[in-house]
Amino acid sequence: MNATRLYEEIRRKKSFLCIGLDTELEKIPRHLQNAELPLFEFNRQIVDATNDLAVAFKPNLAFYECYGTAGWKQFEMTVGYIREKYPDLFIIADAKRGDIGNTSRKYAEAFFSNLPCDAVTVAPYMGSDSVTPFLQYPDKWVIVLALTSNQGADDFQMISNTNHERLFETVLRKSAQWGNAGNMMYVIGATRASMLIKVREILPRHFLLIPGVGAQGGDLTEVAEYGMNDQCGIIVNSSRAIIYADDSEKFALVAREKAMELQQQMRKLLEHKL
Amino acid sequence: MNATRLYEEIRRKKSFLCIGLDTELEKIPRHLQNAELPLFEFNRQIVDATNDLAVAFKPNLAFYECYGTAGWKQFEMTVGYIREKYPDLFIIADAKRGDIGNTSRKYAEAFFSNLPCDAVTVAPYMGSDSVTPFLQYPDKWVIVLALTSNQGADDFQMISNTNHERLFETVLRKSAQWGNAGNMMYVIGATRASMLIKVREILPRHFLLIPGVGAQGGDLTEVAEYGMNDQCGIIVNSSRAIIYADDSEKFALVAREKAMELQQQMRKLLEHKL
Repeated sequence: MNATRLYEEIRRKKSFLCIGLDTELEKIPRHLQNAELPLFEFNRQIVDATNDLAVAFKPNLAFYECYGTAGWKQFEMTVGYIREKYPDLFIIADAKRGDIGNTSRKYAEAFFSNLPCDAVTVAPYMGSDSVTPFLQYPDKWVIVLALTSNQGADDFQMISNTNHERLFETVLRKSAQWGNAGNMMYVIGATRASMLIKVREILPRHFLLIPGVGAQGGDLTEVAEYGMNDQCGIIVNSSRAIIYADDSEKFALVAREKAMELQQQMRKLLEHKL
Repeated sequence: MNATRLYEEIRRKKSFLCIGLDTELEKIPRHLQNAELPLFEFNRQIVDATNDLAVAFKPNLAFYECYGTAGWKQFEMTVGYIREKYPDLFIIADAKRGDIGNTSRKYAEAFFSNLPCDAVTVAPYMGSDSVTPFLQYPDKWVIVLALTSNQGADDFQMISNTNHERLFETVLRKSAQWGNAGNMMYVIGATRASMLIKVREILPRHFLLIPGVGAQGGDLTEVAEYGMNDQCGIIVNSSRAIIYADDSEKFALVAREKAMELQQQMRKLLEHKL
C-alpha cells in the first residue's frame, strides 16, 4: 500500500487507528482458550469486529513466537486472513528486526515475500545495511524505531552527541536519507508528545507510528496537535486497551466499542486539522 | 550453561569456536534441497560432523523465518537435536530481538522456556527493560549487540557523546550494570580487532561473541591477542566459511576440515595465552 492510498483509507474511515494484536493465551476469553487455534480465532473475531474503525493492524511477533511453530502458524494465518478478507487494511509486522545486510534481506523476505505484510518494524542500531534491504519492495514500508515509549528509551535514545543532537534525532535525520516518505515511517512513543515538535522539525512529511496511547498513558489530542501533518501523517496504535477490554463472550463487541471511542476522537481531530 | 562450565568446555575441546547455522536452501548441496526437511537435515549433518570442534552453534533466525512456519519448525528441530544429542554444546539463538518489557518477556519465553537455547542476541536500542527480561533465567545468557562487524555499524555505534564516549562504549558500560559476567555477553565485530582494547578496558571479565572471522575478513590471531582474558573470554563465530565450504555430497566432511583448521589455530592461541 502506498502513501496516497493509506491517506485515502484514513479519510474514508475517518480514523488513523492501528490495533495491536498482542495476543496472549492467558488473557483471551476463557471460552477461546481451548480452541484448536486460539490466537487466530481471537484475532479473527477482533478484526471482524473492528476492521471498519481501524486503518491498520499490528500483530506483535513476540506473542506468537513464544508458542513456537504453533504460534508462527497462527501469526501467518492472521496476516493471511486480514489480507484476503480486508485488502484495504495496512498490516504491520511488529518484529523489531535488524541485522547485517545479507540477514536483513532474509527478514525482508520473511515478511514481504513469504507473507503479505505491508510494513515491518526495525531497530536501527546496526545502521544502514540493516535497514535498506527492507526498502527494496515496492509499496512496502520499513518502520524504524526512533523514540520509543518505554522507560529504557532514556538509556540510549536520549544521549546527546558532540553537536548536541540526541541519538533519536540522529536516527531520524540519517536514516531518512536511505529511503523516502513513501517507504519509511518512524516509531515515536506517544508518552512523549512534546518530542513530536522536534520530530516534525526534522521530518515534516513522514508517517509516524505512535504506540503508547491507552495502556501506556499517551494523550491522543496532544499527539494529534504536535504530530499531524496535512496528510494526517500519524498512525496511533492501541493494543491492550482495545483487545482486552472484556474477557467474556462479548469481548469482540466491547473491543469494537473501545475502538469506536478512539475512532470518534480521531474523526474530530481529523476534521479539525485537515 | 554457566560461565564455569562454558570455560571447561573451551579447555576440554581446545576451541572457542561457534559455528553459525545461516542455512539457506539455495546454498546447501543439491542432493539435500529436495529433502522433506532440508534445513534441518543440513544442520544435523553439519553438527554431527563438527560438534567436537566447536563449543557453540548459532542458528540465525532470519534464515528460518524466511520460510515461515516450515522454517521455524526446522529451527526448533535443530535446537532440539543439538540439546538432546550434544548437551555440552552452547546454543545461541541469533535473533537480534528487543522490545518493551512485557514484549521482551515473551521473546525470552520463546527462546528460554519454549525452547532450550542457552543465549539469545538482543539489540540494545530500547534500553534496560528491553534487555532485563532475558536475565531472569538461571544459566541463560543475553548477548547484547555492542559493536557489529557490518558497514552500517559506523552510522550510530561510533557516535561520540558530549563526554566523548562512543555509543558502543556507553552500551557496554551502562548495560553491564543490568546483569553480570555470568549472564551477559557482547557482540564485538572481529573486523574491528583494534577496538577490542577499548572493550577490554571497559569490560575485562565478560565473554565476547565475535562474528566476522572468515567471510567477513576478521583476523583470529589479532582477535585473540586483544580480546582474550584469563578465562578465554571470547567465542569466535564462523558461518559461511565452514558450512558452505563445499556443496557436494562431501559437504559435512569438508565443513569438518574447515572447522578443524580454525580449532587448531584456536588450540595454539589457547596454549599461548592461558
